[in-house]
Amino acid sequence: MIQTPYLLFLGDAPDQLAAKVAQGITDWRPENAVGQFRMEGCGADLGIVDMTLEEGIAAGAKTLVVGVANRGGYISAAWKEVLVRALNMGYDIASGLHNLLRDEKELMAAARVNGRTLFDVRIPSVAYPIANGKKRTGKRCLALGTDCSVGKMYTGLAMDAEMQKRGMKSTFRPTGQTGILITGGGVPLDAVIADFMAGAVEYLTPDNDPDHWDHIEGQGSLFHASYSGVTMALIHGGQPDAIVLAHEPTRTHMRGLPDYELPTLEALRDLSLTMGRIVNPNVKIVGVSVNTQHLSADTFEDHLREIEDRMGLPTVDPFRQGAGRLVDALADF
Amino acid sequence: MIQTPYLLFLGDAPDQLAAKVAQGITDWRPENAVGQFRMEGCGADLGIVDMTLEEGIAAGAKTLVVGVANRGGYISAAWKEVLVRALNMGYDIASGLHNLLRDEKELMAAARVNGRTLFDVRIPSVAYPIANGKKRTGKRCLALGTDCSVGKMYTGLAMDAEMQKRGMKSTFRPTGQTGILITGGGVPLDAVIADFMAGAVEYLTPDNDPDHWDHIEGQGSLFHASYSGVTMALIHGGQPDAIVLAHEPTRTHMRGLPDYELPTLEALRDLSLTMGRIVNPNVKIVGVSVNTQHLSADTFEDHLREIEDRMGLPTVDPFRQGAGRLVDALADF
Repeated sequence: MIQTPYLLFLGDAPDQLAAKVAQGITDWRPENAVGQFRMEGCGADLGIVDMTLEEGIAAGAKTLVVGVANRGGYISAAWKEVLVRALNMGYDIASGLHNLLRDEKELMAAARVNGRTLFDVRIPSVAYPIANGKKRTGKRCLALGTDCSVGKMYTGLAMDAEMQKRGMKSTFRPTGQTGILITGGGVPLDAVIADFMAGAVEYLTPDNDPDHWDHIEGQGSLFHASYSGVTMALIHGGQPDAIVLAHEPTRTHMRGLPDYELPTLEALRDLSLTMGRIVNPNVKIVGVSVNTQHLSADTFEDHLREIEDRMGLPTVDPFRQGAGRLVDALADF
Repeated sequence: MIQTPYLLFLGDAPDQLAAKVAQGITDWRPENAVGQFRMEGCGADLGIVDMTLEEGIAAGAKTLVVGVANRGGYISAAWKEVLVRALNMGYDIASGLHNLLRDEKELMAAARVNGRTLFDVRIPSVAYPIANGKKRTGKRCLALGTDCSVGKMYTGLAMDAEMQKRGMKSTFRPTGQTGILITGGGVPLDAVIADFMAGAVEYLTPDNDPDHWDHIEGQGSLFHASYSGVTMALIHGGQPDAIVLAHEPTRTHMRGLPDYELPTLEALRDLSLTMGRIVNPNVKIVGVSVNTQHLSADTFEDHLREIEDRMGLPTVDPFRQGAGRLVDALADF
């Protein structure tokens, strides 16, 4: 686990979008961030207090989190100077960058001298077991998408937040780098070795109280030729009790695959049940989560209603409407 | 690619079963082996000529293949002495052992001094791409099993051999260590990083002549909770035109998962088609391959006939009956 709270490093992020990991942290775990650290020319602002490294330490920060996509695919000299200084002051550093902290000699050296840890959250740090398929106690919910990047992580985070608000027992279980940085731990599933994928998901979602819900972050899609194996392992390792169907209605083809049409929600429902029942005969589809960001304020509710009537399932955009109705469906279990 | 021909190293294999990788090579690619190298106490015999390392070189061997499971999970001092001597004489070494050749300092040193290569075929040696899902030319056949280890590799090898015999264009495409050692190349799919599994299968089965068949070695099972993600990637990366259903009728539960029943062949057929159609709308189930080794000579044909009548598909045990009828089904394409 990455130690919290964080100081969020935005570096010289060109714009707000480049800082979306840091934004995810302040949106979902504001208590995990004491402030933001920005360099000259930074075009992003999370709306939280600016701090120097020294001020971060004084505020209790344990880890400097690189919450930003860097330019040019490498860690610049200007960044490195700050990161080395942070290590010397006692920070750990966590990053989801493609270019790894551990590949930078200066950072490794400074971490070693100071006894600090570099967390490259894209890389597994655990030797996961092979899945044993055994039934665990507690309940699990998984969002499965018609495509990649349709709002599965958001759905899981929103359902977890709603459950916390209601005093229900609930944990969000990250399977990707952004989720891992938001909560401080998880499994970077797309970087796990094939044989151990389902075992990694079992590891991530162990036995728990009978009335506790794990919200497992979904990845890929059973219908996405590039990533369906990862999705498959999430279902068979996660053994979900509840499945939420996730959809983005304006996609014209599968993400990155121009020759592939999106499946219907009906096809996703049927295949999800077939696959889910292999490991849990009682699995249920509990609702539909639709990302309506590209639909207007006038039309999105009609669209949701049409799906709800067609599918016979609670259908919401958790960003616009909250995840309350999805959580209601779980409360009935 | 591993250079052929091989000298097959059996070491001090306690029995024939321990030498099953070497047996696979002599069964399927006898032209790839000039002879066998056995040490004192070896309990295995492939029925091919015994050779010293010197005789192997004289017979043209390029690679010493460790075709045996070792005792105790490590490479013994006695083995190492032979392997170092082989490197000094100009052999490459190839192995599918869990304990890697490259982790042995003496072997690495001798390989470096002599400019030789150590092939650990469990470990990918290529940075595979992410799958692009594009349709390739040529045809592809994939065996999908009700369970793991039901004869999928054997089925593919037998179909490839039958096609070669008929003068058809055909290549066996290994996805596991045994298959890789048999043919000299392939993808160790269960050791590939999750994001690149389907891309590795695309890489393994590139564009080819329109009348050429790739026989892709199957892995795992869509119904096996531990490995279904790997199977999924084989389907979506392989884009099979033809699927053979593979089954072992005496299993009482899924391999290694005592709480899981085997699916019916009907369930396997339906799910295989659903999954296959996502990447190839024209995919067809062409036959059933049944491993009847645990059925008696009196009863196995009745069993096959019962399945054939039920499924309406050519049903054979390729070991007992040859793969001719499965290849007939492909010749009709």
